[in-house]
Amino acid sequence: MPDTAAQAPTDRTRVRRIAENAHYDRATLHAIIDAAYLCHLAFADEKGTHCIPMACWREGEYLYIHGSNGGRLLKLLQKGTQACVTITHLDGLVLARSAFNHSMNYRSAMVYGVFERVEDKRAALDAFMQHLAPGRQHEARPGSDKEFAATTVMRISLDEAACKVRSGGPVDDEEDMAHPAWAGVLPFVVMHTPPVVDPVCGIAPPAYVQGWTRGG
Amino acid sequence: MPDTAAQAPTDRTRVRRIAENAHYDRATLHAIIDAAYLCHLAFADEKGTHCIPMACWREGEYLYIHGSNGGRLLKLLQKGTQACVTITHLDGLVLARSAFNHSMNYRSAMVYGVFERVEDKRAALDAFMQHLAPGRQHEARPGSDKEFAATTVMRISLDEAACKVRSGGPVDDEEDMAHPAWAGVLPFVVMHTPPVVDPVCGIAPPAYVQGWTRGG
Repeated sequence: MPDTAAQAPTDRTRVRRIAENAHYDRATLHAIIDAAYLCHLAFADEKGTHCIPMACWREGEYLYIHGSNGGRLLKLLQKGTQACVTITHLDGLVLARSAFNHSMNYRSAMVYGVFERVEDKRAALDAFMQHLAPGRQHEARPGSDKEFAATTVMRISLDEAACKVRSGGPVDDEEDMAHPAWAGVLPFVVMHTPPVVDPVCGIAPPAYVQGWTRGG
Repeated sequence: MPDTAAQAPTDRTRVRRIAENAHYDRATLHAIIDAAYLCHLAFADEKGTHCIPMACWREGEYLYIHGSNGGRLLKLLQKGTQACVTITHLDGLVLARSAFNHSMNYRSAMVYGVFERVEDKRAALDAFMQHLAPGRQHEARPGSDKEFAATTVMRISLDEAACKVRSGGPVDDEEDMAHPAWAGVLPFVVMHTPPVVDPVCGIAPPAYVQGWTRGG
């Protein structure tokens, strides 16, 4: 499927509130996931519904997570528990002339499905490291057999997914346009601030450290 | 209860993975919520488990949300559906010498409970506006009776809540300390970037607009 193809929404992913902000294409979905380092993962068990932040990354049409074998979440997901994964980037506060037309600018992606175990954990975790710090998978001390054995990697297909994006300025009703309140957007940007080296580290900073503050 | 009092964890909020990062005091919980403009809200209905981003704010020992009466979520929450609300701020990528000791710095809060309807919607939404832009509740065109009637405000008690916070540099095992990989933290900060005024707005920027880029 080409990256720009639209995906038909399911009953769960069809956006009903402010439906004109919905996006069902792969390019929007991939961009929102790739801009994130973590997601919120919802699932239910006998104690109730839970919402847990998890580090995540994307390869192709899957979102990946990993964790210790001993964790409650990964044990449960391996039983085929239905999950919902959401990623949201907040871009600004939208100040309209009318109180009820205030809004926020954001990019949000929601994925429904069931996680599956990933057998090639080394390749998957190398891809995660490549997402965090390109090239670092060749520099860090690689995982031992014992470390890999204690870790579970899982992935969820991006088949059932939808995005919702709001951008731009406030939208006021015609009759409110003369109301004397400032109108516009107060924007947020996630910035990269200078790397903080471990005090006992004597290694020269690699490219992804030197270039960190140019990103973000 | 004083702000600094610790709260006993419940079976659901007791942190089991890396328990030394758990915080059960009110001050940590309040600070994490107050630094946020949105939360992720998980709930289950007959279609499955969902995770939805929602604007939120805190007053006292409650987290508030609002939305259109017609929305699926608010209808369901009014039936007493159990919810889990999570807020996560990502502060940095923690690069350790060993691949498996990589981590992230973050501040996360999780709240379990049942939402209740808020009757005094005007006071609650004024408090929300005060959180977004202090003083603006006196400037924007106030909501009409019809607008208030179409909106539901709900809140969840912070009684059953827990926070998890990681900060600081990488922690490597003694035998990895000589491994020649750069070690340290690549930090993130959410910055406020210059306000974008609505092109047809002729109103002078109020204090919260003029001071926007000094915050964040």
